[in-house]
Amino acid sequence: MYPSQRIQTLFKIEKPIIQGGMVWVSGGKLSAAAANAGCLGLVGAGSMKPELLDHHLKKAISLTENKHAIGVNIPLLYKYVEEQIETSLRNGVRVFFTSAGSPKKYTKYLKEQGATVVHVCASPLLAHKCQDAGVDAVVCEGFEAGGHNGREEITTMCLIPEIKSTISIPIIAAGGIGCARSMAAAFCLGADAVQMGTRFLMTEESSAHDAYKELILNAKAGDTKLMMKKHIPVRLLKNHFFNEVSKLEDRCASKEELIHLLGKGRAKKGMLEGDVDDGELEIGQVSSLMTSIPSTKEMILNIENDYNELIKAFI
Amino acid sequence: MYPSQRIQTLFKIEKPIIQGGMVWVSGGKLSAAAANAGCLGLVGAGSMKPELLDHHLKKAISLTENKHAIGVNIPLLYKYVEEQIETSLRNGVRVFFTSAGSPKKYTKYLKEQGATVVHVCASPLLAHKCQDAGVDAVVCEGFEAGGHNGREEITTMCLIPEIKSTISIPIIAAGGIGCARSMAAAFCLGADAVQMGTRFLMTEESSAHDAYKELILNAKAGDTKLMMKKHIPVRLLKNHFFNEVSKLEDRCASKEELIHLLGKGRAKKGMLEGDVDDGELEIGQVSSLMTSIPSTKEMILNIENDYNELIKAFI
Repeated sequence: MYPSQRIQTLFKIEKPIIQGGMVWVSGGKLSAAAANAGCLGLVGAGSMKPELLDHHLKKAISLTENKHAIGVNIPLLYKYVEEQIETSLRNGVRVFFTSAGSPKKYTKYLKEQGATVVHVCASPLLAHKCQDAGVDAVVCEGFEAGGHNGREEITTMCLIPEIKSTISIPIIAAGGIGCARSMAAAFCLGADAVQMGTRFLMTEESSAHDAYKELILNAKAGDTKLMMKKHIPVRLLKNHFFNEVSKLEDRCASKEELIHLLGKGRAKKGMLEGDVDDGELEIGQVSSLMTSIPSTKEMILNIENDYNELIKAFI
Repeated sequence: MYPSQRIQTLFKIEKPIIQGGMVWVSGGKLSAAAANAGCLGLVGAGSMKPELLDHHLKKAISLTENKHAIGVNIPLLYKYVEEQIETSLRNGVRVFFTSAGSPKKYTKYLKEQGATVVHVCASPLLAHKCQDAGVDAVVCEGFEAGGHNGREEITTMCLIPEIKSTISIPIIAAGGIGCARSMAAAFCLGADAVQMGTRFLMTEESSAHDAYKELILNAKAGDTKLMMKKHIPVRLLKNHFFNEVSKLEDRCASKEELIHLLGKGRAKKGMLEGDVDDGELEIGQVSSLMTSIPSTKEMILNIENDYNELIKAFI
């Protein structure tokens, strides 16, 4: 049914599907739902304080029998990174997805603790560095992905075949994947598995605010854009805050002006608290394809059924 | 073998592969080679004077038995559009790919002349307008494509499934397609056929200058970028001219400054005449995957063989 079993074997999961770690969106409830649906569920640590991460990990583990299928995504750019790692290890988590930093920094230590380590990359060059650093797999994330993104603007369509031709560790494709069609496409491109963010955000169990989900339901093609390129590129949904960023960028504002406008806690404000005007709404380009907010279980079932139908055309 | 036969039926061709019309690159020789390899070959009219287009069409037709598989790509933004149309009709051409303008403008007239009409679009909204205008098929071109591009920056991965779910005419995917993997991926996304530009440019028969081909052979991921967004967005290979554009854009130069820098004939200078420093080098993101300059026939054979191998994984 699936052309590769490498990711299923690596994580002892049923399906080659990873629920992407998303700050303020993938807490204990969503990651447990993903694990219960046969996928790998990742708690998005983001800039969380260790106590809050501890709470979400305990919740995730308490809500699933598949404790091995609960992992953590830790972006290496916030100040609590090391405490987040120790908190995760103390909770028995042995699946670490790291991003936004060097794969060399923690891979060795984490492997010594018996963990499986995956690093997120947006270019073939970084994918090589990941393999050299000894990670078990890479997430290769295209330009169409939501949230923080690479500077090279390489799309999933171009990124995956190139990386596939040059590294040997398993590849998880991300960016633009939200239905059976794009999942099957990712496998053709050379991916062993897919990671979905936006599609998991649009489920009953995600902690994204209802007002935010509603906005995504109504999003049309072209309603997201990669912004803040002078600071850290991030794909945002168009809203009042987006327009403010856009105005600054239209007049070539400096990195400092962008950072000042962004301020603190804007993503939490928009995505968790539902201030969809002034909040920062990180989301993938695939948001224009979202037409429902099902349970995680139902969503996965639908994708799998559609996928099985779709691949019949090749038989 | 191929999941859809709609484009093969529409154009009476053997393979669901279109050689994209490229100014200064796809003249009579390349489009005849594409037709001879079982694909649809398009002479790229670009800003050509009618006499030069006449020369290339006559050459294409003289070099192939498959005269029905020779078409013309006419961007609707240059001054010779109507003469280009009449020249093509006089030469017996009945396959028209139009782009960069409204599909309403010439579709009715061309259909009355017995032609098959395809329009290029980069958004679901325009795809709808194309269907309403009565075209026979659409080329849906993602952000990763070379040359002129849409303002919405929608990638092939997101564009094709969305368009597939909303229109009923055949879909030709373009942007990021240059090998068996991406061709199979495009079919999964919902495309009936693929259009390739960069991959056909990198053949013996294309009239791209050798110095330009050499540069593409050495291109790495991230070496193209969508530029000139204030004028007409165009994906360019990095070179001296690219750096000049980049400098202007970094200081928010006006559209007029960009047009002034561009001047006249820069694409011809770079792509046909081989001035790879000061010329404008239009190319797709997939250029970093190009590792050879085979004959068109060999290239198509390789892709087809690889494709047949690849899809076995799904059986």
